[in-house]
This record gives sequence, C-alpha cells and structure tokens, in this order.
Amino acid sequence: MNIKLTVEYDGTNYHGWQFQANSESVQAVLERAISTFLRTPTRVIGSGRTDAGVHALGQVVSFSTNEELTTYRIRRALNALTPDDVTVKAVEIVADSFEPRRDARSRVYEYHILNRATRSPFLLRRAWHLHQPLNIDAMRAAITCLVGEHDFSSFRAANCDSAHATRHIFRTQIDQRGDLVVYTVEATAFLRHMVRAIIGTLVEVGQGSRTAESFHELLERRDRSKAGDTAPAHGLYLLEVKY
Amino acid sequence: MNIKLTVEYDGTNYHGWQFQANSESVQAVLERAISTFLRTPTRVIGSGRTDAGVHALGQVVSFSTNEELTTYRIRRALNALTPDDVTVKAVEIVADSFEPRRDARSRVYEYHILNRATRSPFLLRRAWHLHQPLNIDAMRAAITCLVGEHDFSSFRAANCDSAHATRHIFRTQIDQRGDLVVYTVEATAFLRHMVRAIIGTLVEVGQGSRTAESFHELLERRDRSKAGDTAPAHGLYLLEVKY
Repeated sequence: MNIKLTVEYDGTNYHGWQFQANSESVQAVLERAISTFLRTPTRVIGSGRTDAGVHALGQVVSFSTNEELTTYRIRRALNALTPDDVTVKAVEIVADSFEPRRDARSRVYEYHILNRATRSPFLLRRAWHLHQPLNIDAMRAAITCLVGEHDFSSFRAANCDSAHATRHIFRTQIDQRGDLVVYTVEATAFLRHMVRAIIGTLVEVGQGSRTAESFHELLERRDRSKAGDTAPAHGLYLLEVKY
Repeated sequence: MNIKLTVEYDGTNYHGWQFQANSESVQAVLERAISTFLRTPTRVIGSGRTDAGVHALGQVVSFSTNEELTTYRIRRALNALTPDDVTVKAVEIVADSFEPRRDARSRVYEYHILNRATRSPFLLRRAWHLHQPLNIDAMRAAITCLVGEHDFSSFRAANCDSAHATRHIFRTQIDQRGDLVVYTVEATAFLRHMVRAIIGTLVEVGQGSRTAESFHELLERRDRSKAGDTAPAHGLYLLEVKY
C-alpha cells in the first residue's frame, strides 16, 4: 500500500523538513514513528523541503508498506509516536504511482506579519513582528507583477540549486486579519528562499523605502543583489500542496 | 499620575495573575518591571485574578507614580523589561480615582475548544482539545438560561471566597472559527472557576451525555456536585475588561 499523509508542524524546534545527520528534522521524526509502528525501517518522501523554523499546515508525505492497515489506525498510531509539535492530520491510501514531490501541481504558502506596536505573546515564533505601520495598498500594487510565468532570479537564494529560475505563480494576495498581514502565494514550485526574499523586499515597499514600480523593475532585472533581505523563517507556513 | 495598562499574557509559565511568595506570577513580573523602570518599589492593581495557565488578551492593571512620563515611554520601557510572554499593549493616563477592580463594569472571557480528530501543534497550551465532534446546536440551546441575573452556585469552585454567588451575565454565545469552538461570556464579574465549570458541563451537553434541559435545571438547583468537571485552564482567555 502507498500511504499519503497530510502533516502539520511547528517548525520552531526543527532544522527544517529534510533529514540531516546531526540535527533534528521533521522527516527524521516521521521516519522514526513510522519505522517503530511498522517494525521495519521505512523512508518517507515529502512534497518538498521547508527551511529551519518554517511551519507547515499541510505538508504532504508518502510511504509504502506491505501491511494491510486502516487509515484510522495509521493516524492514531503515528500521532501517539510523534511529539506534540508534529501532527498527522489526515491519512489516505493512494495509487502506488503517487509521488508527493513530482505529482504536486502547486504549493500554497502563507507569510504572517504581525503589524502592530507591541509584540504578541501568542505569536512569538509564529509571525514576523514589524511595529511600523505598513502601507498595504503599496504592497498590493507591487505584487501584481508576480502573477504568471517569470524568471525569479531576483528572489533566489545564493545557494539555490535549481536548474533554472522560471516558476509560474498562479495567485498572490495580501489580506489583513486584525493586526496580522497575511501574504498568500500559490505557484507550481518555489526557489530556495523565494517567498522570504519576496517578503523582505515587499516590506520595504510597505515601509516606503522602495516604490511599487521599483519592485516591478527588480523582477525584470533578475538581480538578487538589488532585492531586500530575506525575511525570517518563523513567519512562513506551507499551507497546502495541490495534486 | 495614575497609569492604566492593558496587558496581554500567555499564562502557560505562570501560577496565575496574583502575586505568590514561591512561584512566578504575572503581577510579580509587572511589579518588577515597573519598579526597575521607576527605580522605586511599586505595586500594581489588577482588574481581577486569573488562574494558573489562563491567558489574557486584555487584563487591565494600574499603578501610580509621581514622575511625569509619556505613555509611549512607559510602554516602550515596560516591554523592554518584561519577558516575551507578557506584553503591555496599551498605556493610558487616567483619573487618580480609577481603580481597575472596583470600577470594572464587566469582564469578557473566551474559552477555546479545538474540536477535531487530531491535536494542533499551534494550539497545544492555547485550546482544550476534544476530538469527539460536539453538537453545537445542543450547546447553544443549553446556554440560553445563563443570561440575566442568577445565583451561579452550580458553577462555583469549592474554594471560592465570594460573599454571594449572584452574578449578572450580559452575553453568552458560541461561535465556530474553523475547527475552533469559541465560547464567549460577558458578566459583571465571575465566581472562581465559573467559566471553566460552565464549559465542563456544556461539553457534556455537546457530547450527548447531558441534555440542554438538564443544564437549565442544574442552574436552578444551585448544586455544584451535579455539574461537570472544571475544564482545563489553558483554553481560557480574559479578553477584555469594560469600564
């Protein structure tokens, strides 16, 4: 059987999704839980990496087993074997051909900015706190250029190992939920640090130190050195992977 | 000058609002911060106690000083001197006669229940997790009897030291926000453990082990031994104190 898991995690205590020899990862946590449950070493495949400190509400993961199990039993067992900051939200039995990374049609990320004078005890490692009021209209004017297929070299980490920088953004929007400014972006896939580089630059527009027009020009220029700083990891959430 | 503070805190690491000799309280944290800032021992008055583990989004606190200070400077100094889980959200200069406990017209509390199959990594000490689906309509039918002036002896802690059990509830409602069931209640004041005893009993209605009618009868009976268990502290939030 090929099993698809939808996994939620608070990334605070992890060095990201991907297995690493000397530090804890969400992948290692899940592989240990599944291997214990199935009593045989088992590897999982994720839809994609998330960086250290990045959260997920809908990471998609798969693994194979020869045992016949109900989805209910798998979910209950794995949640008993994982720490409180990693939760298996849903379990489905899928076609043997299903592969979470290759088959993904799009990924949806959210970036949360707490935009108010004082920090929140409830969002300490859950949102980027910026006390200066952001100009949301200017930020909305800036992001219009992102939709469609573009070369995103301007928003790419130095150590990004993708073959090319062309990605297709389907949707990009900014919502206000009380004091929270939420940026949502859906694309085929993302370059390393792409959302955080977009946010770091967008915040400069919101703070008035860069115009919406210069944001548009930056995308055209394909020059990372002209973009803003990479925004902190702890505001970023992998919301959903669509198939 | 008499200063009014609006304070937010995550109650997880505190033995409640009130100062205690051998354990950390939110009151002690604020008194240390204010005393350091003013360089003189200073006491604060709170609008009321919150129990260990209970959170606040709008606890109201006052203190007096002979120094002439701007509200901006007070807010900035106190937030630099308090830990991350206690935030001074607002500072106002108020009449010398203002006293947060006596002058409060009403208090608003929320109780958060995460009602879904699996725990949430983001709400671990922030909501009571109940995996069995609750019957919200039955719970709504139960709480109608609470509005108005009543003797709330049925929902009063054994060690409650109030002179009498009569309180006036202005508003009581249940909202669904995604997987979260939010109970809101506004009253002149509350008995010790009153909201948590209401929730513990209400959940039995939502789970089908008690009828809405028997909830109404319970209020009439004024007998705590017939009510449900006290719900956990970590789902409770002091939302607002009105003057």
